[in-house]
Amino acid sequence: MEEIFAERIQGVPRSFIREILKVSLDPSVISFAGGLPNPAFFPVREIRNATEKVFADYGAKVLQYSNTEGDLQLREWIAARYLLKKGLQVSPENIIITNGSQQGIDLLGKILLNSGDKVLIEEPGYLGAIQSLSLFKIDFLPVPMRDDGLDVDSLEESSGRHKAKMLYAVPNFQNPSGITYSETNREKVAAVAAAKRFIVVEDDPYGELRFSGKPARSFAHYIPETVLLGSFSKIVAPGFRLGWIAAPRWICEKLIIAKQAADLHTSSFTQKILNTYLTENDLDSHIARIIEAYGSQCLAMQEETSRHFPDSVTFTRPEGGMFLWGRLPEGMDSMELFQEAVKEKVVFVPGNPFYTGATKTATFRLSFSCVDKETVAEGVQRLARALTDFCILRN
Amino acid sequence: MEEIFAERIQGVPRSFIREILKVSLDPSVISFAGGLPNPAFFPVREIRNATEKVFADYGAKVLQYSNTEGDLQLREWIAARYLLKKGLQVSPENIIITNGSQQGIDLLGKILLNSGDKVLIEEPGYLGAIQSLSLFKIDFLPVPMRDDGLDVDSLEESSGRHKAKMLYAVPNFQNPSGITYSETNREKVAAVAAAKRFIVVEDDPYGELRFSGKPARSFAHYIPETVLLGSFSKIVAPGFRLGWIAAPRWICEKLIIAKQAADLHTSSFTQKILNTYLTENDLDSHIARIIEAYGSQCLAMQEETSRHFPDSVTFTRPEGGMFLWGRLPEGMDSMELFQEAVKEKVVFVPGNPFYTGATKTATFRLSFSCVDKETVAEGVQRLARALTDFCILRN
Repeated sequence: MEEIFAERIQGVPRSFIREILKVSLDPSVISFAGGLPNPAFFPVREIRNATEKVFADYGAKVLQYSNTEGDLQLREWIAARYLLKKGLQVSPENIIITNGSQQGIDLLGKILLNSGDKVLIEEPGYLGAIQSLSLFKIDFLPVPMRDDGLDVDSLEESSGRHKAKMLYAVPNFQNPSGITYSETNREKVAAVAAAKRFIVVEDDPYGELRFSGKPARSFAHYIPETVLLGSFSKIVAPGFRLGWIAAPRWICEKLIIAKQAADLHTSSFTQKILNTYLTENDLDSHIARIIEAYGSQCLAMQEETSRHFPDSVTFTRPEGGMFLWGRLPEGMDSMELFQEAVKEKVVFVPGNPFYTGATKTATFRLSFSCVDKETVAEGVQRLARALTDFCILRN
Repeated sequence: MEEIFAERIQGVPRSFIREILKVSLDPSVISFAGGLPNPAFFPVREIRNATEKVFADYGAKVLQYSNTEGDLQLREWIAARYLLKKGLQVSPENIIITNGSQQGIDLLGKILLNSGDKVLIEEPGYLGAIQSLSLFKIDFLPVPMRDDGLDVDSLEESSGRHKAKMLYAVPNFQNPSGITYSETNREKVAAVAAAKRFIVVEDDPYGELRFSGKPARSFAHYIPETVLLGSFSKIVAPGFRLGWIAAPRWICEKLIIAKQAADLHTSSFTQKILNTYLTENDLDSHIARIIEAYGSQCLAMQEETSRHFPDSVTFTRPEGGMFLWGRLPEGMDSMELFQEAVKEKVVFVPGNPFYTGATKTATFRLSFSCVDKETVAEGVQRLARALTDFCILRN
C-alpha cells in the first residue's frame, strides 16, 4: 500500500522517542529521556481561576469560531514581553498564534520550502524540526554545534557552496545539547546570514529558563527580518498547545493563509484562558520557581556524572533549559549503550534522531527537568553501571 | 519578495470570506454570510461544569504533553457514536483527534497528495477543502452537484479520463449547497469509487443536524476503506477546535507521523473537557434543540425567499445543516448582486469561492443558522430589493 502515499511521507518511520516513552511507562524505570516540563510547576490553581473568569466574562463568545491570527490581547502580551525581556520592538500585527511552536515550524515550511530547497540546521538539532521540515522534501545542510554556538566556518562553507533558504536555530539552551550561542557567535552567524541572504528562524522555547550566566541578544537585533518562534509550553503548560510566530508583515500574510488552510485558527478558549492567566498573575515569579528547581537538578546531574563517569565521557554545561548532552569516546554507539541502560532500568535519548544523516553516534541527551536530586543520583549510577557493562561487552 | 515563497503559496489570495466578515461587523448589516453555528446553543453552563470537574479530577496531568492520537476516552466515545448513529464498526485505534476537521483535510493532503495528483471534488464544494488541498499543488477534477448528490455520469467520465487519488465529499447537507446525496446516489458513487479505486473522504460536520427526511448510509457502508472526517464544531462548539479522522489502520500510521510533525498533538485540556461534557450530558437532547431552531429558521428562509423572489431565482431545499443555495438566472453574476446587497445592508457569500475554476457564477450561499425568523424576513426583503436594483442596473 506504500505507493498510494505522497512521496514526502513514504518510508518515514515513527518517532524513536515515542518508542522510548513506552519503555518509560514502567514505574521502576528512571527516565532522563522525556522532553517534558515538570508538571509540579504547572500553575494549576491560577489557570483554574483564570478559566472561571473567562467563563464569567465571555460566556459563549469564547467558544465561537475566531480569527486566524489569534487573540489580539494575547498577541499584545507577547509583543510587550518581547520589548521587556529582549528589547525587541514587535507589533502584535506581526504575531500569529499557533498550536505550539511546532506548528510554527510546519507553517514556515509550507510557505517557504520547495522540494529540493536547502535548509541549514544545527547538528545535533531539534528532532521535531527535523521531522517536520523533512516532509517538505528539502535537503538539510547540517552545521556542527560547538560549545559556543554554531561552527561558523562550516556555516560559511556550507552556505557558500549551496544557496540556502533558511537556517533553523535554537540559540538558547538548545534542544538537545543545552548549548547557548555566545554573543560573538551570534554576531558572526548573523553576518553570514546577511551576506548569504538566508532567513534565520530563531526558535526559543527555553530562553526564559536561564539559571546562570547572562542573556545574549536575539538574532532579531542583528537581522530585523528574523523569524521568531515562541512557546508557552515550558513557562506555563504544554497541554494548551499554545505558541506563536513573530515575523515580518510580508511573511505573516502568507502564514495566515497557511494557518487558515491548516486548521482555521487555534482554540479561542485556551487562548483566552492563557491571556487571563498572564494578566492576572506574576509570570516572572512563577518562572523563578521553575528556574530554581531545574537549576539545582541540572547541577546535581553535572555533579553525579562527573563523580560516576570516566573523564572520557564529557557533558555540556548548560546555563538553562532542560537538557544535558553527553559524548562517549569516538567510535562508540550510544544506541548500544541505550540497550544496556534499559536493562539497568534507566533511559535516555541516543544521539541519532538529532542528526539528519547519522545512523550511529557517540552522543546522547539527558533531561533533568522532571527528576529530583535523589532520582538524578540513582539514575546516573545506573547509567554508569550500564556504561561499564557496555565497555566490558565491547572488549 | 514573492519569489522567496514556496511555489504552493505564491499568488494565493486571502480568503474572500474573511473580507465579507469585515463588512458584517457593522451591526446594521444583516449577515447570511457566516458559516458560524448559533452561539445561543453552545452548552456554556454544562461545559463550565465539565471544566470544573476536569480540574478536580486531573489537575496538572491534563496540562501536560499528551499522545499524538488524542484522548483515548474521547476516541472511544466517537467510536461508540459511530455504532449508535450510523451502524458503523470503528475502532478507537482508527481514530485520530484533530484541530477541527479542517486539520483532517490538511493531514490527508500531506500523506496522500503529490504535486499534480488528481482530486475529485464537489462543484460547488467546501471552500476550506479547496483552499487546503490547493496548497498541495494538485489538479482538481470538479464534479457537478445535482439535487440528489453528485452527477454520476460526470464522475465516471472524469475518473475514467484521469487516475484520481481521492474524492472529497460532504454527502449530508453539503456546504455550500445544503444538498444531501440520496441513497441511490451514494450507491452509484461508491460503485465508481470501487471500480476506479480512488479513496473516498467523507466529511460530515452537519450530519447530526437533520430536521426532516431520513438519514442515508455513510460511504463506509459501501466502501470499508472510506476515510471519515468529523467535527464537534456544529454540535457542541467550534472554539475548542476539535474534530477527528477515522481511517484504516495503514492510513492512521502515516497520519500520526504527519500530525506529530504538524503540532505534536491536539490540546489535552480541551479534549478532556469535551469528553467530560459528552459523558456527563445528554448530547441528543442538546442537538434536538439546535435542530428545532435551525429547522424553523430554514423554513422561514424558504418561505420568505419564495414570497419575495421571482421564480427565476431558485433555492435548494435542505433537510438539515446550515445553508441554502440560491441560483440566479444563467449569465448573472452573484458577485455583482453582492455589491448591491451591501448597499441594502445584507450580505451573503457569492458562489465563486466554492468553485475550483470559475471567476463568475450565478449562485450564492445563504446561512440560516444565526438569524431568527424576524431577521430572516427583513434580510430576505433587503436581498430582494438588492436584486431588483441589480436587474434595473443591468438593463
